[in-house]
Amino acid sequence: MTDKKKIAIYPGSFDPLTNGHIDIIERALDIFDQVIVAILHNPSKTALFTMEERVEMIKQSFNGEKCVMVDAFGGLLVDYAKMKNATAIIRGMRAISDFENEFQMALMNRKLNKEVQSVFLMTGLRWIFTSSSIIKEAVQFGGDISDMVPEPVNLKLMEKFPQKTKSEE
Amino acid sequence: MTDKKKIAIYPGSFDPLTNGHIDIIERALDIFDQVIVAILHNPSKTALFTMEERVEMIKQSFNGEKCVMVDAFGGLLVDYAKMKNATAIIRGMRAISDFENEFQMALMNRKLNKEVQSVFLMTGLRWIFTSSSIIKEAVQFGGDISDMVPEPVNLKLMEKFPQKTKSEE
Amino acid sequence: MTDKKKIAIYPGSFDPLTNGHIDIIERALDIFDQVIVAILHNPSKTALFTMEERVEMIKQSFNGEKCVMVDAFGGLLVDYAKMKNATAIIRGMRAISDFENEFQMALMNRKLNKEVQSVFLMTGLRWIFTSSSIIKEAVQFGGDISDMVPEPVNLKLMEKFPQKTKSEE
Amino acid sequence: MTDKKKIAIYPGSFDPLTNGHIDIIERALDIFDQVIVAILHNPSKTALFTMEERVEMIKQSFNGEKCVMVDAFGGLLVDYAKMKNATAIIRGMRAISDFENEFQMALMNRKLNKEVQSVFLMTGLRWIFTSSSIIKEAVQFGGDISDMVPEPVNLKLMEKFPQKTKSEE
Amino acid sequence: MTDKKKIAIYPGSFDPLTNGHIDIIERALDIFDQVIVAILHNPSKTALFTMEERVEMIKQSFNGEKCVMVDAFGGLLVDYAKMKNATAIIRGMRAISDFENEFQMALMNRKLNKEVQSVFLMTGLRWIFTSSSIIKEAVQFGGDISDMVPEPVNLKLMEKFPQKTKSEE
Amino acid sequence: MTDKKKIAIYPGSFDPLTNGHIDIIERALDIFDQVIVAILHNPSKTALFTMEERVEMIKQSFNGEKCVMVDAFGGLLVDYAKMKNATAIIRGMRAISDFENEFQMALMNRKLNKEVQSVFLMTGLRWIFTSSSIIKEAVQFGGDISDMVPEPVNLKLMEKFPQKTKSEE
Repeated sequence: MTDKKKIAIYPGSFDPLTNGHIDIIERALDIFDQVIVAILHNPSKTALFTMEERVEMIKQSFNGEKCVMVDAFGGLLVDYAKMKNATAIIRGMRAISDFENEFQMALMNRKLNKEVQSVFLMTGLRWIFTSSSIIKEAVQFGGDISDMVPEPVNLKLMEKFPQKTKSEE
Repeated sequence: MTDKKKIAIYPGSFDPLTNGHIDIIERALDIFDQVIVAILHNPSKTALFTMEERVEMIKQSFNGEKCVMVDAFGGLLVDYAKMKNATAIIRGMRAISDFENEFQMALMNRKLNKEVQSVFLMTGLRWIFTSSSIIKEAVQFGGDISDMVPEPVNLKLMEKFPQKTKSEE
Repeated sequence: MTDKKKIAIYPGSFDPLTNGHIDIIERALDIFDQVIVAILHNPSKTALFTMEERVEMIKQSFNGEKCVMVDAFGGLLVDYAKMKNATAIIRGMRAISDFENEFQMALMNRKLNKEVQSVFLMTGLRWIFTSSSIIKEAVQFGGDISDMVPEPVNLKLMEKFPQKTKSEE
Repeated sequence: MTDKKKIAIYPGSFDPLTNGHIDIIERALDIFDQVIVAILHNPSKTALFTMEERVEMIKQSFNGEKCVMVDAFGGLLVDYAKMKNATAIIRGMRAISDFENEFQMALMNRKLNKEVQSVFLMTGLRWIFTSSSIIKEAVQFGGDISDMVPEPVNLKLMEKFPQKTKSEE
Repeated sequence: MTDKKKIAIYPGSFDPLTNGHIDIIERALDIFDQVIVAILHNPSKTALFTMEERVEMIKQSFNGEKCVMVDAFGGLLVDYAKMKNATAIIRGMRAISDFENEFQMALMNRKLNKEVQSVFLMTGLRWIFTSSSIIKEAVQFGGDISDMVPEPVNLKLMEKFPQKTKSEE
Repeated sequence: MTDKKKIAIYPGSFDPLTNGHIDIIERALDIFDQVIVAILHNPSKTALFTMEERVEMIKQSFNGEKCVMVDAFGGLLVDYAKMKNATAIIRGMRAISDFENEFQMALMNRKLNKEVQSVFLMTGLRWIFTSSSIIKEAVQFGGDISDMVPEPVNLKLMEKFPQKTKSEE
């Protein structure tokens, strides 16, 4: 048994954080001592929320949970993982189409850095259809998604799409 | 950071152990403190090697590695995992067809016991096409598979299919 | 609008009926006027329950529901559908691997009889991992599956595997 | 047997309508009393044909067929389905990659409105490779696609890409 | 440009030959100078037709076609291919589930012999749902499959299942 | 045995050429007498390299290899293939998601021109995760990809992303 603290990186866009992401983070905490939620800074992709808003929403959602850190990163994921002394990169899987991309990326990451493992955790059944993009699409037309995101994210979504969120009625 | 020893179960038939299995076990040891290689006792399936032979080959292949334990089990995997105080069930993934079965089994396991996580690790690229059954099929017709299995397994396979193993020539 | 009664065939082994099957039948009843649960008589496959037991369990589970009929059939599905004046063959889908077989069978059925449509309905999320075979495997080792099958099926399963069903403790 | 008229929504972009779409609509009419072809108004996607052109081409292609209605809609599909008293949402399936998206969307739709069923019908074999986008790509370079679209659509496509449509030669 | 005759092996069970197989063989003849239809001798699998019957039906179906040879083989496919001086192993693809097995087998074959290419040809659209096993299942219950197999195979199938073949009526 | 020179088209973007592409071309040369690397001119897609740069890099990488030709083309692939008297269109396959698109395109191509075969070759195991886009993404952040592309491409990539390429250090 090694005494080294086991650190895992959980990379993604988190635009915004969903209950599906939270589910994966909690599962990861059963295995790792610390999970770094690493928001990818991707200049070529338009996000609904700014990097600051995304960091803030995640911090509020994990308020007081010391083992969860939030960070933004750019560049190569494996370089970032090395810098953070991470043992593993966490990926949540929901469906088969996810799997193939993940597989290809994991092979590329391993080529670039053999020391970091890709670890796949399975999203809970009820989050299989929960994705940031499907939530943004639903909320835009007034769909009630309040039980698919943590409260700080729900509030923020209502700010962005004020008149249409049914959960306000 | 918790002080609890992190134990993972790696269940399978291991008929016989391949280098692909060893690859997964070594990756698991980067994350867990102990890996229990748990050979499923399945009375309804005919195996090439007896349970004793399989246990023996795995022990020989991990000679001196204290973090790897070998065991046989029957019954429900989640009950076994609980009894062993395991945090996680390890599954190696090679291909998409693997994935779907795994997914269904992992959902069933979670229903039966919410405390054990299913953790998927990715087989190294060179082991993608290595399976116990494909190895048995190849060796039976004299294909040289000596670089796909550990030495103790290769010796045992040559005993079972003596005149045909090319690596003996 | 036609006045013809819309009849659908729901073929399968039903060895035994699960809550997933019931879910599909109830969805089908939203669309069709009658659903015939057609148990395939397959002499080359060993079943846990006899044809009579399977018919009986389905009848008990749909006690009083006039729109659900139970029947046994052999031979070509499309011939049977024609004989029963069915408009459609119902298939429940849970996963991608299901889909491809279904697709091939549906193409073959259409070739043999162009008048019957194959209609695919989606299993409810909580039944995605519920299959007759996975239930039989779990119950055999004492897993509690009482919320995955209707009560008459649960009782029958406990008869077959008496000492091990945990829900009896 | 209920006396309620069974209405199904068939949503899509229909940019333009293909023979594959017509095949699905005709199959749906075997099961439902009325099919509403509902063209999704999507401001963020550039279409080849205007909404008016698309409505017009579908009307011309189903000239005189009283059970087929054409409509445009925006917002949530399930809200639209409810407003139209629809029992079901029809989706045509051609391939596995279709399936997974459909599955996720159907799960989301069910969460938002439990009363509407997602019904999957199988495209006829000869339309498996027929999609609006592949047709637009082919016609743009002079490929003859006149047997893959109804006549009103073919005429309209020849207007858009006049000098190149080989079927005019 | 090399003057060497290009030989391809087309391995399979051919129990029995279907029009889908013939389609693949004809496509292969556009590319290769000779195609060897190699029937796998598999003692552990029960076949409907004997090896002699299968060889005979293929010979009759390719009567007079000099570029098509028929042979039976056992052992490792790559050893057989080498012995026959074959450049390539032909595989017909119909569906995604085919693909993954094929991929794994092709990787294994390449490992065992680097000189033989695996070449995948696409079955014609109308043969996508034609497989030896689905044909045997249909004919057994009196389904008319006379346009899915060559005439010599149809005759032989009617001998095996005499009273039920509808095409005889 | 026909005396006609067997020509194959290998179409793609080649932005830029990778070792995976080279692997496929070399396999194709085992079967065909000539391979035409046909760069698709796609005005609606932004490329990293100009058409001239791409042609040049491929020519340099196959310096002296007479059986490999490089060309640019627009319009319908099957028309181009016919003009070049090609017997086959070569496609490299790496993964399942590739396969389905390829299948649909191949069916469309066959409809438009029955005389050209689609031939699928399997990428070597080590190139499974090598794609032009994944390489561009990695090199942009300083990942060392020098063993995944031919030397002329590596030099050109270092010109485009000068300060970040680690292999220069």
